[in-house]
Amino acid sequence: METKNSKYTLVEAIIAKHIDPKSGEKVEPGAICRVNVDFAFANDITTPPAIHEFHRMGADQVFDKQRCAVVQDHFTPNKDIASATQVKKIREFAKAKKMLFWEVGRVGVEHAFLPEQGYVLPGDIVLGADSHTCTGGALGALATGVGSSDLAAAWALGETWLRVPETIRVEYTGKRKPFVTSKDMILALIGMIGVEGANYMAIEFAGEGIADLNMDERFTMANMAIEAGGKCGLFVPDEKTLAYAKARAKREFTPVYPGADAKYAKVIKIDLNKLEPVVALPHLPDNVKPVTEVKDMKIDQVFIGSCTNGRITDLEQAASILKGRKVHDDVRLIVIPASYEVYNQAMEKGYIQTFLDAGAVITTPSCGPCLGGHLGILAPGERCLSTSNRNFIGRMGSTESEVILASPLVAATGAVLGRVAHPNELK
Amino acid sequence: METKNSKYTLVEAIIAKHIDPKSGEKVEPGAICRVNVDFAFANDITTPPAIHEFHRMGADQVFDKQRCAVVQDHFTPNKDIASATQVKKIREFAKAKKMLFWEVGRVGVEHAFLPEQGYVLPGDIVLGADSHTCTGGALGALATGVGSSDLAAAWALGETWLRVPETIRVEYTGKRKPFVTSKDMILALIGMIGVEGANYMAIEFAGEGIADLNMDERFTMANMAIEAGGKCGLFVPDEKTLAYAKARAKREFTPVYPGADAKYAKVIKIDLNKLEPVVALPHLPDNVKPVTEVKDMKIDQVFIGSCTNGRITDLEQAASILKGRKVHDDVRLIVIPASYEVYNQAMEKGYIQTFLDAGAVITTPSCGPCLGGHLGILAPGERCLSTSNRNFIGRMGSTESEVILASPLVAATGAVLGRVAHPNELK
Repeated sequence: METKNSKYTLVEAIIAKHIDPKSGEKVEPGAICRVNVDFAFANDITTPPAIHEFHRMGADQVFDKQRCAVVQDHFTPNKDIASATQVKKIREFAKAKKMLFWEVGRVGVEHAFLPEQGYVLPGDIVLGADSHTCTGGALGALATGVGSSDLAAAWALGETWLRVPETIRVEYTGKRKPFVTSKDMILALIGMIGVEGANYMAIEFAGEGIADLNMDERFTMANMAIEAGGKCGLFVPDEKTLAYAKARAKREFTPVYPGADAKYAKVIKIDLNKLEPVVALPHLPDNVKPVTEVKDMKIDQVFIGSCTNGRITDLEQAASILKGRKVHDDVRLIVIPASYEVYNQAMEKGYIQTFLDAGAVITTPSCGPCLGGHLGILAPGERCLSTSNRNFIGRMGSTESEVILASPLVAATGAVLGRVAHPNELK
Repeated sequence: METKNSKYTLVEAIIAKHIDPKSGEKVEPGAICRVNVDFAFANDITTPPAIHEFHRMGADQVFDKQRCAVVQDHFTPNKDIASATQVKKIREFAKAKKMLFWEVGRVGVEHAFLPEQGYVLPGDIVLGADSHTCTGGALGALATGVGSSDLAAAWALGETWLRVPETIRVEYTGKRKPFVTSKDMILALIGMIGVEGANYMAIEFAGEGIADLNMDERFTMANMAIEAGGKCGLFVPDEKTLAYAKARAKREFTPVYPGADAKYAKVIKIDLNKLEPVVALPHLPDNVKPVTEVKDMKIDQVFIGSCTNGRITDLEQAASILKGRKVHDDVRLIVIPASYEVYNQAMEKGYIQTFLDAGAVITTPSCGPCLGGHLGILAPGERCLSTSNRNFIGRMGSTESEVILASPLVAATGAVLGRVAHPNELK
């Protein structure tokens, strides 16, 4: 059964579906609502404090073992004794509570792995103790990051409270030029509205320009809603959404849609006809420039991966550039498939071989260097061109290093040329 | 031209070839000789102090750019800011001196990568600022670990001094039973003579039992000579040695042989007919037991890789066990090919797919968790079954963790069963 309500935006419609009908709570921007939670997860960094809070509030069991997960992805395979001790602790907790848990080699970056495995579904309210939980919005779910305490409460109760966000509707019109990806589309938006441009608001992606995006491309955009301050970034479910979800769903789900009379706090239009490949220069994701304006910036490292751009479509794009080419002598290229499923697909399609032939590092699913964890940390003075989501000062290592955000196409081009460059420079 | 001298052991013959004939130095155990060095290398940990000493002694250029190498392998891809800063420093030094240097993705664990790339050759004297430099002895080279200061002097001068070691001849007779590998052969020796049993001596491997070992299997044995305290562990060159070296050699080389009247300090015989698969229990490599005596010891992690057992023969053995099987739910299996060439071979032969299918982590060439670096560090109370070379207290992480050394066959079996077990338990 589908829920269509004439006056709700997508996020409001999802919240309306999750409140107790008897509560009398009104679903309108600014209202506080108590909602059921469909799925709740934390990672190797955020689970230990969640465990502490879970016990402190006197909880014993999680509300539903199949809806509560612990995903090890940030500093795994265990980077050091501290991370090993954390993972041991979260493993023991997950096993004791019979929650969902997977060993390294059979898991992935939480925001790639959980949707891919059918745990995040259209119409859901999903809480994750990680800011990029908003990635799940690609499926038409209200997926949002919370602190470990709220997550612990959700594990215990299967409920949370939230303030209904206002919604910005972002309409992409026109047609993308060659080499323009969904990463460029979301960076362009963040460049326009700034890193606080959607503070605590929902972003609803719309327009003909998103209809042709596949699910991987949508995950990239939903993932970065938080980089504009958004509470979540949602796509209205379409045939692609439902096909993706049905093939993977671990439980029943009901997609939810915005109403024809939904009220948006703001409508932003972006004309794809005018969009070029872009990068976000240090040190904020809104410092967006067309690639052609900043070409010739030298780079020391390229990272292709993360919850933003570590899926098969991303690796396909990177491989299309790297096929038959070599990584520049002065550059190290680090490729990290976002999940073991992506790794397997990339094996099957020959991309792993392409990366190996090019002279890239390919390593096991992990957040890797994205948040300065491991597997490619930057020294002072070094610069990385990265498909990840944040280029804050010190994000990938030294506070004297720099991160430039880009699409997999631009990142792979940079790996070959040793500098920022438009992919059309490669003939 | 081959050098055969009637009274020299192999190590003495190599030294004799490298002294200045006019010096009048006698090559006999205990004598101090000044010798030319054919190749000298250091890694990301030992290069920074070598650079310091190189400058302190007023050196400007290395003696031969094609014979001096810096290999990044221990904490790479950069684990953290400290390791990134180290690698940056050694990269800049190597480039300034025009020494051999390779980026991650195009390199491997030094003791696998350098012989494989034809930089360590029969008859050579090779110095490495790493204890497992002895691995090169598989090629009939005097390859030995030195401190960073001696290494820096060798880079500057192309010479070093050394005390001529006594030689233990170890004769393997008989025929190996199924599932007995060269790892079991070297562990058996270390178990017999102890971790100080060959202190500052050369081990010369001999006997019909080694003739059928391929080069990979010999590298495993030479690699662990240091675990008995040996200065080096050498194999007399045979057809396999020469075929391997000729196919890869980056320069001319002259194999060297022991004389028929060579004097050995000791001769040890090991009857392969009586050898079973063994493991070395915590916390020393000489704490060797037959697998069948200690089966049922539970394990949390399995590591297949390292300069000891990360070559294609090792991955082939592991894949033969894992093909069509799954890693135990409670075990994480970490597989690290020792070089990009090994990684490529394992791709071609389908082993990488086998490991992925089994649920293993496969990651880029690196020392990984072997020395407690990264990519699989142990928490307190955890136990790892490992194909590496050392099981000292705290070697792979917490001082309250344990490492058990084993062959790739026993390690892979453990990954499937979740405990130490003889491979013949798998039907």
